[in-house]
Amino acid sequence: MADNKRGKHSFVLPQMPVITAWASVAGKKEGQGPLAQSFDVISGDTYFGQKTWEQAEKQMQKIALDTLIDKAGVTRQQIGLVFSGDLLNQCIGSSFTLRNTGIPHIGLYGACSTMAEGLLMASMAVCGGFSDKVIALTSSHFASSERQYRFPLGYGGQRTPTAQWTVTGAGAALVCSAGKGPRIESCTIGTVTDLGIKDANNMGAAMAPAAYDTIRAHLEDLHRAPEDYDLIVTGDLGQLGKDALLELAKREGVYLGGRLADCGTLVYDAVKQDVHSGGSGCGCSAITLCGHLLGQLQSGKLGKILFCGTGALLSPTSTQQGLPIPGVCHAVSIVGGSV
Amino acid sequence: MADNKRGKHSFVLPQMPVITAWASVAGKKEGQGPLAQSFDVISGDTYFGQKTWEQAEKQMQKIALDTLIDKAGVTRQQIGLVFSGDLLNQCIGSSFTLRNTGIPHIGLYGACSTMAEGLLMASMAVCGGFSDKVIALTSSHFASSERQYRFPLGYGGQRTPTAQWTVTGAGAALVCSAGKGPRIESCTIGTVTDLGIKDANNMGAAMAPAAYDTIRAHLEDLHRAPEDYDLIVTGDLGQLGKDALLELAKREGVYLGGRLADCGTLVYDAVKQDVHSGGSGCGCSAITLCGHLLGQLQSGKLGKILFCGTGALLSPTSTQQGLPIPGVCHAVSIVGGSV
Repeated sequence: MADNKRGKHSFVLPQMPVITAWASVAGKKEGQGPLAQSFDVISGDTYFGQKTWEQAEKQMQKIALDTLIDKAGVTRQQIGLVFSGDLLNQCIGSSFTLRNTGIPHIGLYGACSTMAEGLLMASMAVCGGFSDKVIALTSSHFASSERQYRFPLGYGGQRTPTAQWTVTGAGAALVCSAGKGPRIESCTIGTVTDLGIKDANNMGAAMAPAAYDTIRAHLEDLHRAPEDYDLIVTGDLGQLGKDALLELAKREGVYLGGRLADCGTLVYDAVKQDVHSGGSGCGCSAITLCGHLLGQLQSGKLGKILFCGTGALLSPTSTQQGLPIPGVCHAVSIVGGSV
Repeated sequence: MADNKRGKHSFVLPQMPVITAWASVAGKKEGQGPLAQSFDVISGDTYFGQKTWEQAEKQMQKIALDTLIDKAGVTRQQIGLVFSGDLLNQCIGSSFTLRNTGIPHIGLYGACSTMAEGLLMASMAVCGGFSDKVIALTSSHFASSERQYRFPLGYGGQRTPTAQWTVTGAGAALVCSAGKGPRIESCTIGTVTDLGIKDANNMGAAMAPAAYDTIRAHLEDLHRAPEDYDLIVTGDLGQLGKDALLELAKREGVYLGGRLADCGTLVYDAVKQDVHSGGSGCGCSAITLCGHLLGQLQSGKLGKILFCGTGALLSPTSTQQGLPIPGVCHAVSIVGGSV
């Protein structure tokens, strides 16, 4: 049997799976932000032609899936498997996107870490020869998240300064055994970390310890240093969570410094867009990766990145019952197409 | 690159991963049913010492995980990865079980198909050499499900004759690259199937088409017949869903006949236990597998089974919005320890 495991949490991919195509669908606010040029579809209609926010989210995923298949020049029948999940109760965004498509489907739940989780699982499936042309897909929607986790929009609730803004967007990436494009080189699977943070309006702080744990595990398991990457990009800690991660790392003597970026701070303009601590939601890291970051890897502007999807594993029920917010982070190392 | 893919939906495992240990935790009602002897733990306290139903469910998973690790004679530090998920919003049963254990965790959402989904993913992870000593874990709780999907128990709502009874139970299985025990030989990944059933009190009917699709795909992809298995065991269609599956298969000329069993009908005594159409929930197929079925494979009473986890991918929100109930089914072929 092959031995691709490294250390406690990581594995390498001796035959590196290739991300041959990617697609992103964004809402109006995201389309007014600094990454607008990198999105395939920007919709001015927040309902995406549907009657409910949940169906709007499903529709975004569907558009991302169809756009990806179109961009990749493959047929739906050629897709081997879709890994997908979202934040909606029982992941109905994903289930209703996939229904009656005939595409094999594995449902994931990793909250906002889902894009990284999906890429990690797709890497296993492709490199192990269990499937090919495997898609990682996820979404989030500002209005469905506000209703589910916070308050109905009509209440006009005040947002705290530490709050993040859930990205309306869906991202999809196609992982293949052969082809041209950025390649996945190794992955690190996260553990569920909980330091007792209970403020559901400060999820960056709740997720920062998980992000640090996974980055540290990745560097240790693979005997690497932050300098081995052009960019270590978390998603979605927001500004406060990013600061907390830098501080945590510094205390342990790890200097992430100028190499650290966060999808939550990349996706919006902090000054002009009034999003407080930054973006969040499964869609945040998904549209930042499946546009801006993979584009820069493709063009050679970035040589190698560590994409660290972070998720806050709370539910309104656990919060109401007074429980803290566990976090998780999965990391995927991606090398540029020209490396 | 290895090519283990077969047909559209299936893959084989050239180095068969071994299920070296398993554990099940059951509630009071399940402990009064026909499979009682096969459970490791039966609790008379439906709260499992906790203050809420959701925390009770977490506690069951925790006991199942700890019992499994104990039975396997390994340490927590030796566990490579846990795949787990449950029915609770945002899968908090699983997240809170894993928090601060230090065990790498991938969250799944497959509704009641989670045990099969977890075994399928564990097979990929182990056979591909990406991890070892990988656990598939899941749970459901009658009271947390009733509250979330139907009515608070205190309302004393009448149950329809087609309704199923959510199993209070948690199951866990350890999948290893070497060792003694039943082995996983091949898997088939399901597609999301929806024939328009909208009755959330008749989930067996909603899931039967998905079960049929996956069983048919498995037989076609691997050029097999139902006779190649001692038992084809779905979970959890219940009596009505099982009848619907038999009828669907018969129409297509596939005779599942005496080889078909369903975890929802195995776990309770239909005459004495007043569960209407049978058991359901992630825990239903999990405790039936991680006790009764794996025990029979171990002892040689069964030589080869096709374990078909079925899931209804609805949420209360999708039902309230008038949408039908998509179903999914993942199949895992397991051969006995003595074969």
